[in-house]
Amino acid sequence: MTITPPALSVFETLESEVRSYCRGWPAVFDRAQGARLTDEDGHSYLDFFAGAGSLNYGHNNPVLKRALIDYIERDGITHGLDMATTAKRAFLETFQNAILRPRDLPYKVMFPGPTGTNAVEAALKLARKVKGRESVVSFTNAFHGMSLGSLAVTGNAFKRAGAGIPLVHGTPMPFDNYFDGTVPDFLWFERLLEDQGSGLNKPAAVIVETVQGEGGINVARAEWLRALKELCERQDMLLIVDDIQMGCGRTGGFFSFEEAGIVPDIVTLSKSISGYGLPMALCLFKPELDIWEPGEHNGTFRGNNPAFVTAAAALQAYWADGQMEKQTLARGEQVEQTLLAICAEEPTAQFRGRGLVWGMEFEDPARASAVCARAFELGLLLETSGPQSEVVKLLPPLTITPEELDEGLRTLARSVRETA
Amino acid sequence: MTITPPALSVFETLESEVRSYCRGWPAVFDRAQGARLTDEDGHSYLDFFAGAGSLNYGHNNPVLKRALIDYIERDGITHGLDMATTAKRAFLETFQNAILRPRDLPYKVMFPGPTGTNAVEAALKLARKVKGRESVVSFTNAFHGMSLGSLAVTGNAFKRAGAGIPLVHGTPMPFDNYFDGTVPDFLWFERLLEDQGSGLNKPAAVIVETVQGEGGINVARAEWLRALKELCERQDMLLIVDDIQMGCGRTGGFFSFEEAGIVPDIVTLSKSISGYGLPMALCLFKPELDIWEPGEHNGTFRGNNPAFVTAAAALQAYWADGQMEKQTLARGEQVEQTLLAICAEEPTAQFRGRGLVWGMEFEDPARASAVCARAFELGLLLETSGPQSEVVKLLPPLTITPEELDEGLRTLARSVRETA
Amino acid sequence: MTITPPALSVFETLESEVRSYCRGWPAVFDRAQGARLTDEDGHSYLDFFAGAGSLNYGHNNPVLKRALIDYIERDGITHGLDMATTAKRAFLETFQNAILRPRDLPYKVMFPGPTGTNAVEAALKLARKVKGRESVVSFTNAFHGMSLGSLAVTGNAFKRAGAGIPLVHGTPMPFDNYFDGTVPDFLWFERLLEDQGSGLNKPAAVIVETVQGEGGINVARAEWLRALKELCERQDMLLIVDDIQMGCGRTGGFFSFEEAGIVPDIVTLSKSISGYGLPMALCLFKPELDIWEPGEHNGTFRGNNPAFVTAAAALQAYWADGQMEKQTLARGEQVEQTLLAICAEEPTAQFRGRGLVWGMEFEDPARASAVCARAFELGLLLETSGPQSEVVKLLPPLTITPEELDEGLRTLARSVRETA
Amino acid sequence: MTITPPALSVFETLESEVRSYCRGWPAVFDRAQGARLTDEDGHSYLDFFAGAGSLNYGHNNPVLKRALIDYIERDGITHGLDMATTAKRAFLETFQNAILRPRDLPYKVMFPGPTGTNAVEAALKLARKVKGRESVVSFTNAFHGMSLGSLAVTGNAFKRAGAGIPLVHGTPMPFDNYFDGTVPDFLWFERLLEDQGSGLNKPAAVIVETVQGEGGINVARAEWLRALKELCERQDMLLIVDDIQMGCGRTGGFFSFEEAGIVPDIVTLSKSISGYGLPMALCLFKPELDIWEPGEHNGTFRGNNPAFVTAAAALQAYWADGQMEKQTLARGEQVEQTLLAICAEEPTAQFRGRGLVWGMEFEDPARASAVCARAFELGLLLETSGPQSEVVKLLPPLTITPEELDEGLRTLARSVRETA
Repeated sequence: MTITPPALSVFETLESEVRSYCRGWPAVFDRAQGARLTDEDGHSYLDFFAGAGSLNYGHNNPVLKRALIDYIERDGITHGLDMATTAKRAFLETFQNAILRPRDLPYKVMFPGPTGTNAVEAALKLARKVKGRESVVSFTNAFHGMSLGSLAVTGNAFKRAGAGIPLVHGTPMPFDNYFDGTVPDFLWFERLLEDQGSGLNKPAAVIVETVQGEGGINVARAEWLRALKELCERQDMLLIVDDIQMGCGRTGGFFSFEEAGIVPDIVTLSKSISGYGLPMALCLFKPELDIWEPGEHNGTFRGNNPAFVTAAAALQAYWADGQMEKQTLARGEQVEQTLLAICAEEPTAQFRGRGLVWGMEFEDPARASAVCARAFELGLLLETSGPQSEVVKLLPPLTITPEELDEGLRTLARSVRETA
Repeated sequence: MTITPPALSVFETLESEVRSYCRGWPAVFDRAQGARLTDEDGHSYLDFFAGAGSLNYGHNNPVLKRALIDYIERDGITHGLDMATTAKRAFLETFQNAILRPRDLPYKVMFPGPTGTNAVEAALKLARKVKGRESVVSFTNAFHGMSLGSLAVTGNAFKRAGAGIPLVHGTPMPFDNYFDGTVPDFLWFERLLEDQGSGLNKPAAVIVETVQGEGGINVARAEWLRALKELCERQDMLLIVDDIQMGCGRTGGFFSFEEAGIVPDIVTLSKSISGYGLPMALCLFKPELDIWEPGEHNGTFRGNNPAFVTAAAALQAYWADGQMEKQTLARGEQVEQTLLAICAEEPTAQFRGRGLVWGMEFEDPARASAVCARAFELGLLLETSGPQSEVVKLLPPLTITPEELDEGLRTLARSVRETA
Repeated sequence: MTITPPALSVFETLESEVRSYCRGWPAVFDRAQGARLTDEDGHSYLDFFAGAGSLNYGHNNPVLKRALIDYIERDGITHGLDMATTAKRAFLETFQNAILRPRDLPYKVMFPGPTGTNAVEAALKLARKVKGRESVVSFTNAFHGMSLGSLAVTGNAFKRAGAGIPLVHGTPMPFDNYFDGTVPDFLWFERLLEDQGSGLNKPAAVIVETVQGEGGINVARAEWLRALKELCERQDMLLIVDDIQMGCGRTGGFFSFEEAGIVPDIVTLSKSISGYGLPMALCLFKPELDIWEPGEHNGTFRGNNPAFVTAAAALQAYWADGQMEKQTLARGEQVEQTLLAICAEEPTAQFRGRGLVWGMEFEDPARASAVCARAFELGLLLETSGPQSEVVKLLPPLTITPEELDEGLRTLARSVRETA
Repeated sequence: MTITPPALSVFETLESEVRSYCRGWPAVFDRAQGARLTDEDGHSYLDFFAGAGSLNYGHNNPVLKRALIDYIERDGITHGLDMATTAKRAFLETFQNAILRPRDLPYKVMFPGPTGTNAVEAALKLARKVKGRESVVSFTNAFHGMSLGSLAVTGNAFKRAGAGIPLVHGTPMPFDNYFDGTVPDFLWFERLLEDQGSGLNKPAAVIVETVQGEGGINVARAEWLRALKELCERQDMLLIVDDIQMGCGRTGGFFSFEEAGIVPDIVTLSKSISGYGLPMALCLFKPELDIWEPGEHNGTFRGNNPAFVTAAAALQAYWADGQMEKQTLARGEQVEQTLLAICAEEPTAQFRGRGLVWGMEFEDPARASAVCARAFELGLLLETSGPQSEVVKLLPPLTITPEELDEGLRTLARSVRETA
């Protein structure tokens, strides 16, 4: 495939230098369907990024699209603040019936502003309010968002530096396997908590991703998560699972923590919760934590009703039974087998993942970028992650067909070979 | 109109206690068109709140609706991160041609996360980065958002208390007319800046709303805004105008600061920028401030392309000429005349406003809530604002007809009378 | 008097660049008695600085000296932590009998580390602990010390910049007469406190100097102090009077706030409390505030027993009756008359003061330094103060004779004339 | 020995509840000489606490006493701010000749306020100023002082809670042997520094005690200190050794870091630097770090000249040759042998130490307090340390005779036995 230089002028002259993805993918995209995007010149791209995890059901999923257009056509409420609407009620009932009840999860549901960082800000506020302490523990290479509350518990030094103020009230602890299994889990964290002379400000909460997507596809083991939950209980800290990228089925189950059998105190959801890539976010918490005053946290777009419509449709279409989970795990095995083969050929790479989120780490960080660049030339959208962008991240839609998956994986293999 | 108690159960049992508007407006809304909403029982409500300023062109505006459905139908990109898309290019070109060029505004355009608070977080980060200082000055009764960066420059004590950490790096200064004209403008602020012993941390920037919507419809005079801009220049501080609620034509001109003839260094827009109530936000700044590194601030939903489509359609439909501004000012006069008459009858009330944002302040704060409650019973959506919720806030769609406006104002007058 | 360049080498080669007074007074001092110092070359200097207010009873006051040598000779406890000692008991009893009881002051006495800033740190900690709030209000041009807690409530921008971290949890308010009487007292402060939307973090306490020594000899009126005390009571804030420089008789009465008839909640004392220039500090507070846990604030040198000995001797010698106060006020009148005459001749200067602390402010800040430099050449130690070092500060020992005072004032007058 | 209840009334009625040592040692002390104190009833106490390390040369050391009285008698400058004085010059020259030159240490000398915490505040300010970063790393169970800057790098949770504000800009790392040798030194710290995604704010400096006195007599190995110094160099962080308690010969050499052969960037000294228990402190740093502006950090009592006199006398008397160091190490061996014997009998205790600082840790924290209480009844002053006060701390004067040392150790052994 040959790509002619696209007409990027207004992006270059008018849009801020802060833009990023468009630099690595120099095309002007026009349409998308399922796992494929098409640019304005008619070139087609297979999508192994899925809106950074926001498009688990693919681009413009036809089931959701129908529901969305119907809703707009009939002049359903679009912007609803936190007014009661029929669309919101339908979503709440569906979420209760399809997700919470079958999993025996007792959560109350909060609609913060419709972005992940807003859900995290709400979770942190609530945890601090409940416990009356400022400090929160996060993990190495965590990513929780870009507003100041979320950024303070995010690991990346470059992102943190953008704050323009010292980021405080957060302390990082080693994520699972940070020392390759040579140090007992939570040795440092637990000792600091137990030692009255340690100097650690007692945390209100711990915030964790079960798989660190931005941090380099670092997968926490189920037993590590269980031990973390137990530590939180013993030490009177709330456990917040940020399931923004890994929730909504990305790792198999609807929530990524299901496999570990834990019930976090607070859960944040966003990205794929609307199913259609529309802005929406939820903050879930145990009922006894619901000590909010009315309006104590709010946001203008917390009632993005078209997103509620597609969200309810997605839950009904994909989560009424266990089919989705099974399919994701099967697709995951397909990815794993291929990565095993690629890494057998390429000794400077190793891979890891779970469900349909996988990462290939290269010894030379520049190689990961080179692989993604070559993949783009070959019509595959791939991104890097990790503190040095040393990991190629595989995040295809969950609804991708085995054939599409195979096509993308072959392109990946070729990109790895051709950048050797 | 008689209203039967709606079936609110799932909202009461599953949704968090943090919900607020649905408490004052106990109905389940189903559809909306222009300035009217309809609940599931078929009752109709005239909307004088307009999504807290997000629905300047009314609910489900047919022009925008057409463009939106067409886009969805043809599988245009929905979720686009910050990839270049045809929809984004169309928006950028339209924004440049319809808004920036005619006003000779040199701004670069940044797409932060699609909510107001995210735009404010981006603006504050950039100002701190440019100036290398942490401190930002805000004004009494300011409202800039609920994430920690924005909340630190927000005045409301109740909202601030929700942070759970001390909010620092911000200092409040008196907004225009805070002392009813008895103290020269900026006397305190300027003296603190000039006195090397004052103890004020030198601010990177000043953030201001031209009309404080949440703070009680406090209207800054044009000369006060001009003097503020001059003070910022003299003292090497950036001026950020938060035009999230007052921009997009609410006060007449597209930007609320046009009337004062100033060019702020940074401008935030959200709420009505998409035109259709879809989440979208912009941060505008002078080109010399565009020192962002790629990806230094980002957000998953910053490329909400359906919103770009309706935004471009709205700019084309309403801002190609000066018609919108004239109409808004005419409608504003209609409001002003009525409020003059109401306050002539009701000596404990006074009013203020500009364009199509008006407030009626009552000596007894409880009265304002009573007026809104009675208005709701009479089929009119009205909200309070101000530190003690003592101000009834009028924020009708700009596209409201004179007849609808008159109907709503008559309901307001009746509500005032009947709560005396 | 001719001064030969002193041998400063080790000060220049070994001592840090942070040294300051020795730069303006290039002599190596050897001995001192009363209001006079002698350098190693035998030159004599009249002291109008008195150790920045630490030598109210003059250098090496013979009454105190006797007691001190006796104590050392008999091997009294020198370093006592907070052990009970006979010297400490004697001091406490004397302080109670000579100072607290006659003034009907109910204070408990705390011995923090033996420096002013340590007393302020203790006062701020206690106020925050009692009220459960972080924020403290200070005043423009306040000076409370150089450790981080005290520095955060200090006004001087140069000193603040030395912190190396953003100084937060403090907000400055205008000191008395900051706007030359054109703005009602506490207009801004009170409005911020009453307005729930002001954005001011509710303060735990207000810290104030009755006369700002470092800030430029700014004298608060008694009625302003009374109104401040009332405001604190109304708004549930503690009033801390930092009497480190103005206490121990500097303004006439033992405490500088006596004239205003107020009883602060917390008082800090240091500088002249030992009487002999030895490090010592006290923190006094109302008994109901004494919620400290044992050892919650401490310091190695809080039991500097030789200082307790001279402190008790000073109280006995000078505060058994009202003689000291009368004498100070009389000497103050002598100063005032002379300053009146000097300023009559020098229209660019004005003066202000109380008791034996006076300041002459010059329109041209460089003039104040020139006056001090010339005075030094003429054998008089004088320092500047104020945010731009624009004020010549007069702080002679309280025990100075009328003749010495006259001599110094004549040298001052000459220095003013000769720098015109 | 029988002790009659002393007359403590004024301490109980007038002094604040914050007092602590006087609670464990209910006597009113009157005189002291060498290693012995006498209370007002004539009872004698052997001192194994030495003013928390401030009396390394014993109480009222006759050599220093003579110099001190001579100085006072001849009216030497007592209070000198940072003026050049003959006493200060003599101290600086002696410090250079006896301490810095023989050790080839290039330090500049700064006189902060005369307390340890003030020296630490100065060190932290300077490090932040030099590196332009806010963050400082300290160690578990560190103690650096009670003012807010120092307290933020102190470990003890009880002391930290007294701050009344969140203590930020500091991060604790594990001190040597925190995991009993099971984890490689600096594994966690180094990894956080190297990982750009770790979330650690890059530190300006690391502050460390070579032996943690308050923290429980935790002794850092020389190789650990060397590795720390290397880590600091590799990672562009300054190394601050807080030698306030362990300097001035406590561990053998004048500086406690000499044994490790490292040259810290910044060193703080206080406690025994004056030799006589008089308040004095120093901050030493490499000349290239001396970027202070004149007066950027200061303090009223930084020129406590009587302390300079005794300090110079102490250096001349004890540090002209290596005798003091040899004697301290010999006395240390005497202590070690006895502790070995005691712990052989008492299996729930273990001991550790260096030079003349030793600790006995008991499995049951209450036992340590019981031992100290019994020792007091038997005429020996002993204190606990450690996060749970579980360590009996031995800190006798360095000038103690072998016989006195033996006497005290026998009392200790008896106290251990009698509290079993």
